[in-house]
Parts: sequence; structure tokens; C-alpha cells
Amino acid sequence: MPAAGPVPRSKHVREKHRRRRAEILSAARRAFREHGYHATTLEHIARRLDVRKTALYHYFPDKESILYACHRESLTQVHRHVEEARTRHTAAGDRLAHVIREHVRVMTDTLEGSTLAFEVTALAPAHQAEVIASRDRYERALRELIEQGIAEGEFRPLDPKVPVFVILGAINWIARWYRPEGSLHAPELGAQFADHLIGGLARR
Amino acid sequence: MPAAGPVPRSKHVREKHRRRRAEILSAARRAFREHGYHATTLEHIARRLDVRKTALYHYFPDKESILYACHRESLTQVHRHVEEARTRHTAAGDRLAHVIREHVRVMTDTLEGSTLAFEVTALAPAHQAEVIASRDRYERALRELIEQGIAEGEFRPLDPKVPVFVILGAINWIARWYRPEGSLHAPELGAQFADHLIGGLARR
Repeated sequence: MPAAGPVPRSKHVREKHRRRRAEILSAARRAFREHGYHATTLEHIARRLDVRKTALYHYFPDKESILYACHRESLTQVHRHVEEARTRHTAAGDRLAHVIREHVRVMTDTLEGSTLAFEVTALAPAHQAEVIASRDRYERALRELIEQGIAEGEFRPLDPKVPVFVILGAINWIARWYRPEGSLHAPELGAQFADHLIGGLARR
Repeated sequence: MPAAGPVPRSKHVREKHRRRRAEILSAARRAFREHGYHATTLEHIARRLDVRKTALYHYFPDKESILYACHRESLTQVHRHVEEARTRHTAAGDRLAHVIREHVRVMTDTLEGSTLAFEVTALAPAHQAEVIASRDRYERALRELIEQGIAEGEFRPLDPKVPVFVILGAINWIARWYRPEGSLHAPELGAQFADHLIGGLARR
């Protein structure tokens, strides 16, 4: 990621910088959700934070770098959940359930229902390549969990390719219907997704 | 739908008109898939048919009316599959399997993997309202099939709302990864979707 603005000095300043950056990303995701990425301006984002547009330049040089930071943040989270699943659970079904539940939470809580997953073509080519490579790595991790479940005899024998598309499609689609002010929320929502999507792989 | 161009006279002329119209819609979907709806021009569509742009005006007044016709066509098909499922099958599981299999086929064969499902906001307000109402009707039909399956004891008791989102998300996401030249196709693909998505609702 390109360096943007001054490098923070003390621990206190660093913490303040980190918090402000997170606030900007949150405001940006809400703006993207409301107007769509393309129609969103830095002005929209600044207005939500009650600051002037120039105040954002200390953190991000442009709108694309904000989108990129949003992508990086959610991808970092989903990869961390794969690691968590590996250390916390032994059975493939439990690991996959953990990953699905937490990915649903990323969609509802981190992304707050923004359609970020749909905006990969708006990224600069180098960022786009990085995001796609990171997604590919995540898809491979899901395929491996399904293969493990088949090897353990919990899942029926199948090509894991299509089930991974089914799982990711169901989760990414959350951005199309989720409303933070609605009645469906993590963790119940994640548990329902995991039950449905893992139950469908089980031996009958 | 607004009348576009001359009303065809004889049966032969009507049939030719119908065929030409279908060719335009097919070329348009491929163009939308390649360039995205917004970046596609009537010029792109005409070039695929080796005609001049003005030749399209006999069939469609503008790009939006083509998008609307594409939406109507796929929605007409999915509603017909719900009816077919009701006449051909008795058990809710079999009915839902039929609907899922055929909806997957609409995504791969009729829409040829175009991201049409994502472009509802590009429709004129009246068309958008009609398409959304038609989708809502389809969602209700899916919910009713799940409720029927619960009543019959085939599915476990659950709120059908989330499973319908899971099913539609998985199917709509096909537009994001499907490649007509790839190795995954209907009807095998539809069968895999139905197994996964219905198996996940079954009583354990």
C-alpha cells in the first residue's frame, strides 16, 4: 500500500491515526452501500465524518486507495478465520462451519452489507491482481477443508469446486439484501448459513 | 413493454421477427458479459450481429429496453419452472430440486453467464418496479416450497427466509464465475446445486 500522509510518531499518535483510519473506512463502506462505489465521492465520505475532504488526504490519497484498504481489511479477516479454524477445531466440518460463520460476520459487521465484493474491477491493476490472488488463496483453503471432510468420511465424495462457488455465492450475496437495521444478524445468521451449506455436503 | 418498430404481419414475418429479436437479446447478453452493462453500446451489440446500429431500432428503441427484455425473458422462465415443478412433482424436495436445476440452466444457458441479475438499478423506474415485484413473487414461491417441505417432514423446521437468500445467492453468483467455454455445465451443474442446497435443508 502506498504511504499516505505523515508517519505517526508516538504510540498515542499511532493509535489515534489507526482509529481515525478505521472511521474513514467505515464511513466509506456506508457511502459505497448507499450510493454505489462509482457514484460515491470523497466529499460524501468526508461529510459523514463532519470533516473537510482535504482531511482525508492525511490517510488516503484517493477513493481507489480507500476501496483497496477495505478489500485488504476484509481479506485479512477471512484468512485469519481460516487459521483460527485450524487451531480451534479438528474435524473439517467444524472448521468449515467456523469459516462460514465468521465470513458471514465480515459481510454483516465489517462490511456492513456493502457491495465491496462486487467492486474488484474498480481497483488499480496491481491492487486488483493482489486482491484476486488473495481470494484465490481463500478459495483454495475452502476446497482443502471440503477435501479434508471427504477424506474424514463426514462429507460425501464430490468435486469441491462447485460447493466452494455455492458457499461463496451465498455469502457474497448477503451484500444484496442485508440491512443493518433489519432483523437478521450475526451470529444467528452465520449459524443458519453454516447449517444449510455444510448440511448439504454431509453423507446421507 | 413499449411497441417498437412495425407490427409483423404474416406468420412467416412474425416468426422471422421473433427469431431476430432473440438473436439481438443473445448478442446483447454476451456484450453485457464482456463489457458490463454500462460500458456496452448499441454499436457493440450491432457489431456482433454484423448489422448497423439503426437495424436494432426496429426491435428495441434503446439499450434500456434490451436490458428490460432480458430481465423479462429470464423471469418468465423461472416462473414457468415453478409451475412445471408443481405439475410434475408432488414432494416439495423434488419440486425445489426442479426449480433450482432449471434456474441454474437459465443462468448458464439463457443468460450465458451475464451479470444481468446485478443490473436492476439501470432499468427505468417502472421497469425496475415490475422486475422487483416479479422477483419478490419468485422468492415467495421458493419460501412456500420450503414451508411445504417442512410440513411434509422432509425439511427440518426453520424460517425459510434465510435459506431462500442462500439459494438465490448461490445461483445468482454463477454469473461471476461461469465461463461458457469452461468444463462446468447444466444439467450436471444444476444437479450439484440442487443436491447441495436441498441436502442442507433435510432432517438429519
